[in-house]
Amino acid sequence: MTKSKSYHLNSTKIAEATKEWLAKRGVTTSQIAELVIFLQKEYFPDLTMEECEQYVEAVLSKREVQNAVLTGIQLDMLAEEGKLLSPLQEVIENDEGLYGCDEILALSIVNVYGSIGFTNFGYVDKLKPGILKKLNDKEDAACHTFLDDIVGAIAASASSRLAHRKQAEREGAMGPPLD
Amino acid sequence: MTKSKSYHLNSTKIAEATKEWLAKRGVTTSQIAELVIFLQKEYFPDLTMEECEQYVEAVLSKREVQNAVLTGIQLDMLAEEGKLLSPLQEVIENDEGLYGCDEILALSIVNVYGSIGFTNFGYVDKLKPGILKKLNDKEDAACHTFLDDIVGAIAASASSRLAHRKQAEREGAMGPPLD
Amino acid sequence: MTKSKSYHLNSTKIAEATKEWLAKRGVTTSQIAELVIFLQKEYFPDLTMEECEQYVEAVLSKREVQNAVLTGIQLDMLAEEGKLLSPLQEVIENDEGLYGCDEILALSIVNVYGSIGFTNFGYVDKLKPGILKKLNDKEDAACHTFLDDIVGAIAASASSRLAHRKQAEREGAMGPPLD
Amino acid sequence: MTKSKSYHLNSTKIAEATKEWLAKRGVTTSQIAELVIFLQKEYFPDLTMEECEQYVEAVLSKREVQNAVLTGIQLDMLAEEGKLLSPLQEVIENDEGLYGCDEILALSIVNVYGSIGFTNFGYVDKLKPGILKKLNDKEDAACHTFLDDIVGAIAASASSRLAHRKQAEREGAMGPPLD
Repeated sequence: MTKSKSYHLNSTKIAEATKEWLAKRGVTTSQIAELVIFLQKEYFPDLTMEECEQYVEAVLSKREVQNAVLTGIQLDMLAEEGKLLSPLQEVIENDEGLYGCDEILALSIVNVYGSIGFTNFGYVDKLKPGILKKLNDKEDAACHTFLDDIVGAIAASASSRLAHRKQAEREGAMGPPLD
Repeated sequence: MTKSKSYHLNSTKIAEATKEWLAKRGVTTSQIAELVIFLQKEYFPDLTMEECEQYVEAVLSKREVQNAVLTGIQLDMLAEEGKLLSPLQEVIENDEGLYGCDEILALSIVNVYGSIGFTNFGYVDKLKPGILKKLNDKEDAACHTFLDDIVGAIAASASSRLAHRKQAEREGAMGPPLD
Repeated sequence: MTKSKSYHLNSTKIAEATKEWLAKRGVTTSQIAELVIFLQKEYFPDLTMEECEQYVEAVLSKREVQNAVLTGIQLDMLAEEGKLLSPLQEVIENDEGLYGCDEILALSIVNVYGSIGFTNFGYVDKLKPGILKKLNDKEDAACHTFLDDIVGAIAASASSRLAHRKQAEREGAMGPPLD
Repeated sequence: MTKSKSYHLNSTKIAEATKEWLAKRGVTTSQIAELVIFLQKEYFPDLTMEECEQYVEAVLSKREVQNAVLTGIQLDMLAEEGKLLSPLQEVIENDEGLYGCDEILALSIVNVYGSIGFTNFGYVDKLKPGILKKLNDKEDAACHTFLDDIVGAIAASASSRLAHRKQAEREGAMGPPLD
């Protein structure tokens, strides 16, 4: 299409929209941090919420993650408003089992911190602890087909980052190898 | 959201919508088959259009592929109509370089026929031969941010299927190992 | 290197080696089928072992899956024999937490049946039911750093295939969309 | 297997081995930087070798990348020495077309900098400029089935990092969103 000549990407705007959209859809950094604690407490019993929130913030600062969050939430909202075309509307609205684009976007988040996050993603996506249970509650009018996978992926990525950080601390290194 | 009790997935409907949406967006099986010939003619000089169209049809019959096609085209159309929220609207409308969800969906298509298709996908996505050049022409009112990657991915997948088939023929086997 | 002029890929040989190597490493089709039942029994209470074994066989017939199985088992065996170079030898021998190439190969298996298998892979990889527990038992002389992820991935893929099949049956279709 | 009680991961050792193994296999940072220039010079005509080498170094500092480099080179070396079991030995030795584990490991490198690198990976993997042509020369005794894909992936990842950096500079931001 005829592109507006004046378009300039503004990363700050995209980062801010990511936080705003998550908040608007009922997801807080603190709820995602709780998932990180759920996943990691047996390995790091002293883990604090404050620490986990920092890992979540770090994940959310990545552009690749922001792209997936915005795209997934947008599709959820449009499905909720009935604005997608049939049959995609029904597929997303009903979180249909053979539809995997939600897992695809989630995986693009996990990948940023490497493959060690796959297991944690699958685990919370199956068990649906905390906020994931709430997002998955199909009794209200909201559609979170994409968001529940995305939130699980952010928690899994934050867990990967934590694993890299803890290793770096153990070795007395100045920084993590995968940042 | 309160799910309609009467929802039943209908695979035929999804397969048909995939073809209709591609046609509506100006992409024919024959144009994708031309990309397959572009990618494979040096290895198989006798390759016919008819044969390539069959490989493309086979790729398009996979549910995972249909999901990606429908989701990508839907986002393109909504961007074209200005119905996405800012800043996602501007990002997709301008096919912004740091936005990678289009490549992500494309890769989910390539993956179905295995990793040997990655190279072919990247190659046509960079060179933009045939229909890809037309889709990428930014002078008209259409937005094909997702569709050009998706069409390249279908052609790459059809090339992978062809490689498996040709091997099976060579061995006189009854069927291909990756179908 | 100077390639032997006489090399011709033989798919049958690769398929047979896959079964032999799995057997040699202590993994049977039936043990993988048990993982499929573990993953799917709540959705399909009437699922039989025989049926699940057929899904597992179908997964194992794919070339992409065979490649990952052979490569992973080979690395496990070389690590067991101490034949890898340091520090890779120690990393694989100790199934080191920041090493993710085992998950990478596993994911290439799951991908063949599409993204809906990611969740099941992560779930069994975390819980380690049945054969996975045995493979993960670090008290004996064997190294299964790659194999436990690979077996979990085969079970997750077989579950995806089952989901596609059951849908096709429900619709009375002749075949599954993702085969 | 009975794990040595004294095992402690040493990230520095793994980082150093990555550089040493690449050098030993005939690949220098400068040759990879040349691939980055090949991929990016049309977009950034002022790009210097020094700058590109820094991007390559940054990619090589990531643990996920180091894992893939070490694993791929190890398999190449073992194939060269004829130490893999048949039929995997012949498959890797002959860089067989339906074997995709090399692309799989390469993709795990590209993923760390997000999906925008897929296209560049496929493009250099097909065209084989510079060092890739040398690695792919099948007339000598060396086997680089994994290494050529890995080197292409490092160059594609360095290009992605460059794209993020340049955007950050343009916006006057202090740091890149995807680091």
